[in-house]
Amino acid sequence: ANIVLLPGDGIGPEIIQQAELVLGRIADIFGHEFEFESHLIGGIAIDTCGDPLPQATVDACRASNAILLGAVGGPKWDDPSAKTRPEAGLLRIRKELGLFANLRPIRLFSQLVDASPLKREIIEGTDILFLRELTGGIYFGASGRDDNNGDESAYQQMVYSVSEVERIVRLAAKAAQGRDNRLTSVDKANVLEPSRLWRQVAARVMTEEFPDVQYDVVLVDAMAMHLINRPRDFDVVVTGNMFGDILTDEASMLPGSLGMLPSASLGSDGPGLYEPIHGSAPDIAGKGIANPLATILAAAMMLRHSLDLPAEADAIEAAVEAVLADGLRTADIARGAESIGTEAMGNAVLQRLT
Amino acid sequence: ANIVLLPGDGIGPEIIQQAELVLGRIADIFGHEFEFESHLIGGIAIDTCGDPLPQATVDACRASNAILLGAVGGPKWDDPSAKTRPEAGLLRIRKELGLFANLRPIRLFSQLVDASPLKREIIEGTDILFLRELTGGIYFGASGRDDNNGDESAYQQMVYSVSEVERIVRLAAKAAQGRDNRLTSVDKANVLEPSRLWRQVAARVMTEEFPDVQYDVVLVDAMAMHLINRPRDFDVVVTGNMFGDILTDEASMLPGSLGMLPSASLGSDGPGLYEPIHGSAPDIAGKGIANPLATILAAAMMLRHSLDLPAEADAIEAAVEAVLADGLRTADIARGAESIGTEAMGNAVLQRLT
Ligand SMILES: CC(C)[C@H](C(=O)O)[C@@H](O)C(=O)O
Ligand SMILES: CC(C)[C@H](C(=O)O)[C@@H](O)C(=O)O
Repeated sequence: ANIVLLPGDGIGPEIIQQAELVLGRIADIFGHEFEFESHLIGGIAIDTCGDPLPQATVDACRASNAILLGAVGGPKWDDPSAKTRPEAGLLRIRKELGLFANLRPIRLFSQLVDASPLKREIIEGTDILFLRELTGGIYFGASGRDDNNGDESAYQQMVYSVSEVERIVRLAAKAAQGRDNRLTSVDKANVLEPSRLWRQVAARVMTEEFPDVQYDVVLVDAMAMHLINRPRDFDVVVTGNMFGDILTDEASMLPGSLGMLPSASLGSDGPGLYEPIHGSAPDIAGKGIANPLATILAAAMMLRHSLDLPAEADAIEAAVEAVLADGLRTADIARGAESIGTEAMGNAVLQRLT
Repeated sequence: ANIVLLPGDGIGPEIIQQAELVLGRIADIFGHEFEFESHLIGGIAIDTCGDPLPQATVDACRASNAILLGAVGGPKWDDPSAKTRPEAGLLRIRKELGLFANLRPIRLFSQLVDASPLKREIIEGTDILFLRELTGGIYFGASGRDDNNGDESAYQQMVYSVSEVERIVRLAAKAAQGRDNRLTSVDKANVLEPSRLWRQVAARVMTEEFPDVQYDVVLVDAMAMHLINRPRDFDVVVTGNMFGDILTDEASMLPGSLGMLPSASLGSDGPGLYEPIHGSAPDIAGKGIANPLATILAAAMMLRHSLDLPAEADAIEAAVEAVLADGLRTADIARGAESIGTEAMGNAVLQRLT
């Protein structure tokens, strides 16, 4: 398989390196051939080519079987008056590759329950899979400015079409069938017209195509509450781009170990894009202390979803569990206790791969 | 002063009754004249007049000094195909009265810290004042449907103008000056054009008019995280209508006692509207067990912000603190221990008013 690596900025290169080593070991053990090609994205691509998503990167991604991304962005490129910003690369690659579904599993590692800001009796047992629509909604709606008789205004349109809702809801319902068979759709149908369409279409798809899946609907403001006081009650959650951005980030705090959470962005065909959900952490970049486990777990998701290698994915996840069970921690999850660096953590996973 | 009461639906009438008694006692003690007039809003207004906000209600509100609202909505009016819904009354009264600023203080009652779903070491000391823009943004943007060659789509526009941002940021900055002098503005300027305008305008207002206030900017997704893992770090937070809807509801879970939280909606002049932030709780309506304290605290906010009676507001808040200190609890905050009903709780506050 042909795998494109997009290390990006900040700690990106360090964590991608460990994930590449893990994938290499998997290839050896299971007898696969993985070819790796690194390309530019984000701030480093702006510095090198003046473009956060150079055409060469898009072409390489298109020709690949799967993509593993580190992180993009940093204070160096934060100037609001800059012509382009690292995040523009992220938004464009989603659109160019048609990655309409962002999958974010929120699960607790039993060894890390005490890292949660929530009380144990509230968080224990939480296991949610979010599906966020990623190529539509207000993110890609028409935008601009109006003069408005001297009181300048700015607008951006939230839009959803029937086909956009259908495909993400179908994917979410299928995911639910492979889990606890429950799906929650989140919208703001009491205020927004696109949410009303979303709710209608979702209800029809669920009734006609997935009558066996237990289905319900929650308003986005209520969901922001439920995630905090009864996170255990949810199985699969599907929502639009903007609401998904906010709710998945909220949910990512629940386990208290952001450095452990991977995500996958999938299209209807073509390569998927896999990444840790944490950012480029410029404050610790180059220090060799970043936690590579989210990226390694993203590599496992890649094996499962894009390369159809579920046993290999299981092997990586088991190795990560084993490392935690042995008490090994990077600084971000050590809670003040002894910690090891990025490379040592990567090595520890390698040793436990079988 | 002329006070309009809008009991609304569900537990609304029960909790408004207790707040009215408390206001009456305040009038007696401090020698004021409060006249109360009750009007219809929400589901009961639909049932009575076919309109969730009858003109008589609007007229009475316009002629008043302040408005105290219970809650609107319930399963009876939840039919998605209904011509109108209770919430439409809420959205319209905000717009009709120009209530552009929703103030939501999120504070902990020290007696109730253990009710929080968050660990004590994270939540203790949290004291945030949210200002949510309430008459603009995507809530009131142009909306509709397009045929789109058979793939129907629905749209709604997020819009903010310079003057809309200026007035809410000014109000927020002034509020910060009366507190810890720190203001955080929340937007999604890396994706949304209205957020970019918001960020520019807010920065200009803060630099030119409030150079003494410590000011910073956070993205909405990051804010959804920070509220959970470092809520103590914020003083005043200002944001748009949609983000404010989600973030204030998220924040309302932090104290673990939704039944204690009031809110105020203010315009540039004219009456303000005060309400508990919880809903109409149809499941317990009519049982006499609803917690009236959020509504009583909303009445205190009313005295402070609309009637310029800060000592009277302090008196109510002190009485509520005293009731809690004496161990009195309604069922929602009793955590399984002994509890008292709505009327008994109202009486307990009355007895402690001095
Ligand atoms: C960087 C930003 C544009 C992006 C988004 O909002 O989608 C990020 O927050 C994410 O969730 O991947
Ligand atoms: C009922 C609904 C329209 C309303 C809103 O979204 O503004 C409510 O959630 C609120 O926050 O007051």
